[in-house]
Amino acid sequence: MEIERVGTGVPGLDTFMGGGIPKGIDVVVHGDPGSGKTSFAIQFAKNGLENGESCIFVELDILPGELRKKMHMLGLDAEKYEEDGRLIIVDGVSGKRVGTCSRERYVIKDPRDLNSIAKTISDARQYLGEGGRIIIDSWASIALNFTSEYRGLIRFTEAFVVESRNSNYTTLLITDFSVEDRLMKILRHIASGYIEFLTRFEGNSKRRYILIHNLRFTSHVETPIPYTINSKGLRVIESRL
Amino acid sequence: MEIERVGTGVPGLDTFMGGGIPKGIDVVVHGDPGSGKTSFAIQFAKNGLENGESCIFVELDILPGELRKKMHMLGLDAEKYEEDGRLIIVDGVSGKRVGTCSRERYVIKDPRDLNSIAKTISDARQYLGEGGRIIIDSWASIALNFTSEYRGLIRFTEAFVVESRNSNYTTLLITDFSVEDRLMKILRHIASGYIEFLTRFEGNSKRRYILIHNLRFTSHVETPIPYTINSKGLRVIESRL
Amino acid sequence: MEIERVGTGVPGLDTFMGGGIPKGIDVVVHGDPGSGKTSFAIQFAKNGLENGESCIFVELDILPGELRKKMHMLGLDAEKYEEDGRLIIVDGVSGKRVGTCSRERYVIKDPRDLNSIAKTISDARQYLGEGGRIIIDSWASIALNFTSEYRGLIRFTEAFVVESRNSNYTTLLITDFSVEDRLMKILRHIASGYIEFLTRFEGNSKRRYILIHNLRFTSHVETPIPYTINSKGLRVIESRL
Amino acid sequence: MEIERVGTGVPGLDTFMGGGIPKGIDVVVHGDPGSGKTSFAIQFAKNGLENGESCIFVELDILPGELRKKMHMLGLDAEKYEEDGRLIIVDGVSGKRVGTCSRERYVIKDPRDLNSIAKTISDARQYLGEGGRIIIDSWASIALNFTSEYRGLIRFTEAFVVESRNSNYTTLLITDFSVEDRLMKILRHIASGYIEFLTRFEGNSKRRYILIHNLRFTSHVETPIPYTINSKGLRVIESRL
Amino acid sequence: MEIERVGTGVPGLDTFMGGGIPKGIDVVVHGDPGSGKTSFAIQFAKNGLENGESCIFVELDILPGELRKKMHMLGLDAEKYEEDGRLIIVDGVSGKRVGTCSRERYVIKDPRDLNSIAKTISDARQYLGEGGRIIIDSWASIALNFTSEYRGLIRFTEAFVVESRNSNYTTLLITDFSVEDRLMKILRHIASGYIEFLTRFEGNSKRRYILIHNLRFTSHVETPIPYTINSKGLRVIESRL
Amino acid sequence: MEIERVGTGVPGLDTFMGGGIPKGIDVVVHGDPGSGKTSFAIQFAKNGLENGESCIFVELDILPGELRKKMHMLGLDAEKYEEDGRLIIVDGVSGKRVGTCSRERYVIKDPRDLNSIAKTISDARQYLGEGGRIIIDSWASIALNFTSEYRGLIRFTEAFVVESRNSNYTTLLITDFSVEDRLMKILRHIASGYIEFLTRFEGNSKRRYILIHNLRFTSHVETPIPYTINSKGLRVIESRL
Repeated sequence: MEIERVGTGVPGLDTFMGGGIPKGIDVVVHGDPGSGKTSFAIQFAKNGLENGESCIFVELDILPGELRKKMHMLGLDAEKYEEDGRLIIVDGVSGKRVGTCSRERYVIKDPRDLNSIAKTISDARQYLGEGGRIIIDSWASIALNFTSEYRGLIRFTEAFVVESRNSNYTTLLITDFSVEDRLMKILRHIASGYIEFLTRFEGNSKRRYILIHNLRFTSHVETPIPYTINSKGLRVIESRL
Repeated sequence: MEIERVGTGVPGLDTFMGGGIPKGIDVVVHGDPGSGKTSFAIQFAKNGLENGESCIFVELDILPGELRKKMHMLGLDAEKYEEDGRLIIVDGVSGKRVGTCSRERYVIKDPRDLNSIAKTISDARQYLGEGGRIIIDSWASIALNFTSEYRGLIRFTEAFVVESRNSNYTTLLITDFSVEDRLMKILRHIASGYIEFLTRFEGNSKRRYILIHNLRFTSHVETPIPYTINSKGLRVIESRL
Repeated sequence: MEIERVGTGVPGLDTFMGGGIPKGIDVVVHGDPGSGKTSFAIQFAKNGLENGESCIFVELDILPGELRKKMHMLGLDAEKYEEDGRLIIVDGVSGKRVGTCSRERYVIKDPRDLNSIAKTISDARQYLGEGGRIIIDSWASIALNFTSEYRGLIRFTEAFVVESRNSNYTTLLITDFSVEDRLMKILRHIASGYIEFLTRFEGNSKRRYILIHNLRFTSHVETPIPYTINSKGLRVIESRL
Repeated sequence: MEIERVGTGVPGLDTFMGGGIPKGIDVVVHGDPGSGKTSFAIQFAKNGLENGESCIFVELDILPGELRKKMHMLGLDAEKYEEDGRLIIVDGVSGKRVGTCSRERYVIKDPRDLNSIAKTISDARQYLGEGGRIIIDSWASIALNFTSEYRGLIRFTEAFVVESRNSNYTTLLITDFSVEDRLMKILRHIASGYIEFLTRFEGNSKRRYILIHNLRFTSHVETPIPYTINSKGLRVIESRL
Repeated sequence: MEIERVGTGVPGLDTFMGGGIPKGIDVVVHGDPGSGKTSFAIQFAKNGLENGESCIFVELDILPGELRKKMHMLGLDAEKYEEDGRLIIVDGVSGKRVGTCSRERYVIKDPRDLNSIAKTISDARQYLGEGGRIIIDSWASIALNFTSEYRGLIRFTEAFVVESRNSNYTTLLITDFSVEDRLMKILRHIASGYIEFLTRFEGNSKRRYILIHNLRFTSHVETPIPYTINSKGLRVIESRL
Repeated sequence: MEIERVGTGVPGLDTFMGGGIPKGIDVVVHGDPGSGKTSFAIQFAKNGLENGESCIFVELDILPGELRKKMHMLGLDAEKYEEDGRLIIVDGVSGKRVGTCSRERYVIKDPRDLNSIAKTISDARQYLGEGGRIIIDSWASIALNFTSEYRGLIRFTEAFVVESRNSNYTTLLITDFSVEDRLMKILRHIASGYIEFLTRFEGNSKRRYILIHNLRFTSHVETPIPYTINSKGLRVIESRL
């Protein structure tokens, strides 16, 4: 029984996790501001699109225009894939203003309302059909509005994850330090994997590492994997095999 | 007055606990993601089934299909025992989606509703009759939905444990780090035993240990017992006697 | 003015506390799972019964059948004393199931309802008359159901203690780590004494100690007293005088 | 402007605080179980009675009978002063049982009701007239019933203290570790002084110290003052001057 | 643009803060019991009165009679200035008893009611007119009654501070350890300055220091300034310039 | 695709962040009292005004008159720019008193009401048109009134930030230690950048540093940048390039 895998899009990374992320599972990606989480998410989306998969990019942190710019900078022609009907960018930011107005096709009316988020994602998934990739950038932004009373958020996340597994979508849930420890542990319990982007100061210079804590159906490297970020995105520094 | 015992199914482990787990008690099994808790649960179920006991496997973390695959990988022909009417897999995952739909025979309608869980387990126990084994994989998943207000959860767990003892079922309650410390202590108070799966980094390599904290009616080894995981499941590294 | 004392039933222990526990006071006994608290409670009951006192054993952790077995293992013929009308075992476990059913004579209908507990104990005390011993095994089990809102529990415990002192009962309140620190301090404030069962790892072996923190009307040893547990119960290792 | 002072009743102690406690102020006395707080309170009462002052002893921890016994052991003939109308013992314990019954003259009907406590103290003060001593043994017992919601308790304590100062009563408020840190700080803010009974293990033996943290209108020793307890109560070990 | 300053009244202190406290700002003064906060407040009031300013002394900790005694001990003839209509002592203590009765002219009816406090201060300020000094001794006493729910207290304090700045009053807000850390940070955010009275044990003797943490419009010494207290109040030990 | 940048106004600072703050983003500035946050804000406003941009200065800590004085001290002729219609000072302080009265043109009626704040800022933005700078001095003052229940505050801040990005305003959000850690992390998650003003004691002298934690679209220096404050405001000590 062979496990089917999808590439991460980060040069040199897949070999550390048995050839890629197992298809259809859900992985939490955690890192501080500036660690390249959004770049990683874009590279992951690009890899899927270039391999014929469709992709839903739920953006809750920056404006859709900013996201498309960033995608272009990383070599992903967003508009082309959107026209092809294979990439859907969900605008989860405009709705945070009083009086939503957005020219986007997929807009979350009220990004603090979990039903509103679920509905928009469900519409997108229905349009694209079974299989593909979903990125929640960031799950932390959803969690912001549920400090101390997590129950609804847990329910939403469990339902989202079961739904994604059922429809065979590979999923990234992006988080950062704004998520409370307690909630982070719960999210890790729910998800199938957990990858952390670490920053360490060694002497005077900052070093970046990817740490794969756990990944279902996968035997992976357990030591930190050094990487860099430049204008082309993330890249693993030396590919040890 | 001899204590009757049941095997764990893990090669080399039973000798460390006086020949196995005392029949009819309830044991908490705690470990981090990737420590092999679900594999342990499957080995425990397999051991029971091969020794003529019946078994209820309450699965709240992965889809029933995924569980059966994992059982096959560990040499347990789930479908055969299900047809024989000796193994019941309870689907506690499908109900987390909006609009439950599951082809399973034993489905928890609403996995956040403790009555719904209790009802399905009770149905299964009634079908199989007195004696046997029950695995809750995982109790941590039930606990997720009861952050900060534990009362109902404690009541449910106490009732479940008393019921299981009364009907002479040997029980595993699987947990992990998502359970709050306070609640973990309460669960340990309620249960008859507590076994922990530990991971330690020694130099560059990860070592795994089973630690038996307490086990009613049993004098057990009190030092960590080293084990490994491979495609056949858990195995104790060296059998010291 | 001489203080009347009752024996603990543990060989070698009474001399460390001026000849025994002062009659009519209430002592908190605290220890981790496996430290022998229930054995201690049974030895304490046995000592009383053999010295002509009557005894109420309020059991909230294990089934009455299990308790009687354990009593027999420690040389206490429970049924005999029950027939003599000098030992009352209160079943505080069966009532935790949905739909209580118990063949016991003294059953706490709802072990989460403090009035229900108080009522059953009061009935037992009325039957046995003034003087004797009461064991709550365990007070921690009662406390489980009162996380964060202690007021009712404090009120119940204060009333129970005053009632016991008034009717001249010597009382044990068994607890463990499941009781929150804050609540433990309150319980110690209410009670007349506090004895702790400690476990220490010295090199490779586990050593057990009894530590008497305070005991009203008594000058006691303040250093840890080493003890062992075997099939006959607890025993102090060397009797220093 | 000379400060009038009252003796503590502890041999050797008054010289460390400028000759005694300033008349009419309120002092918090804090110590662990077994440190001699109640003995100190009795010595303080005895000193007042022997110097012609009247005294209200509000007892919330032990039964009035137990208190009188303890008073006799320390050489205070309680009944004599009660008959003389100069000592009032307030029974704050009997009311904790369901269905209060007490043969005492001054009984707090409901010791969890602050108005009930205030009323009984006020009656006693009215009977004895201006000046004298009040001991609350223990304020900690009142505080037990007000975990987390302190407002009423603070209000009660402020009113009690202002009332006592107004009617020129010197007051002791006894506390222990069951009082939360936060509340302890508030109590210390309200009161005019704070004296702590410390226990230290020095090598194998336990040493006891009195530590005067602050005392209004008084320049006091700031180092711990060693003391012992025996059948005659507390005594300062060496009187350094 | 020169900053106008007012003296503290403590010999030797003003030179450490550019000549005094900038007129019209509000300063938090924090110290443990016995550190001389009230003496400082009286010296500050005395300095203002002797320089022709008027002064409102809001006393919430000790009875007005006690305050006047303490003022006399420090050489401030309270009654004289009160008759001159330049000093107002606000009685914030009597109202804490059930059934307020006070012969004072300015009495806070209910010292737990923020409106009642604000009203009395406002009356006093209206009587004295623009400019002068206000001392709240202590703000900590007001805060006592607002544990955990700060909102009203913050609102009151902000309004008080803005009002005082508007009417050009220089303000002292006295606090101590009974104020929770969180609330202390908020108070420091609201106020224009923060001065701490420190006590350190150096070898066997206690040393006292004033530490100026921040003071708007002022460049101040940042190291602790040693001081002593005697019957004449606080005095800086050596005037370093 | 070149990033447009705006100067900070602090001599020597822009070179450490790729030439300035990216236009249209929002930056959190955090520092203790006395670290020069308000001076920084004024220098930032001055730089914008001198480069032809318009500026909204929302002042919630000091009176508008005090702010204008401070602006003059730092060489910014506030009145001139206000007359030109390019600088708007929003009075967020007067409204904290009971009965607002302010001669200012832009006054926040109720500074504890988030809608009231949003409305006044929106009016100002509408008057000035697209582009420019907004300073919230301080966001911490808004947060004061939302201890423990953050939801409304998060919603307000997200809406404010999205609105500012949409209308191309570069934004400073000033904070200090009065903001709870948890809330600080949430604010940092929402904002595009985070700059901290640090104070360290090195031997006997206090050293000041600016630390750029993250800044979107910018590669910045990651070590602390030393600076000083004098009557002309902040200045980087040595410009390393």
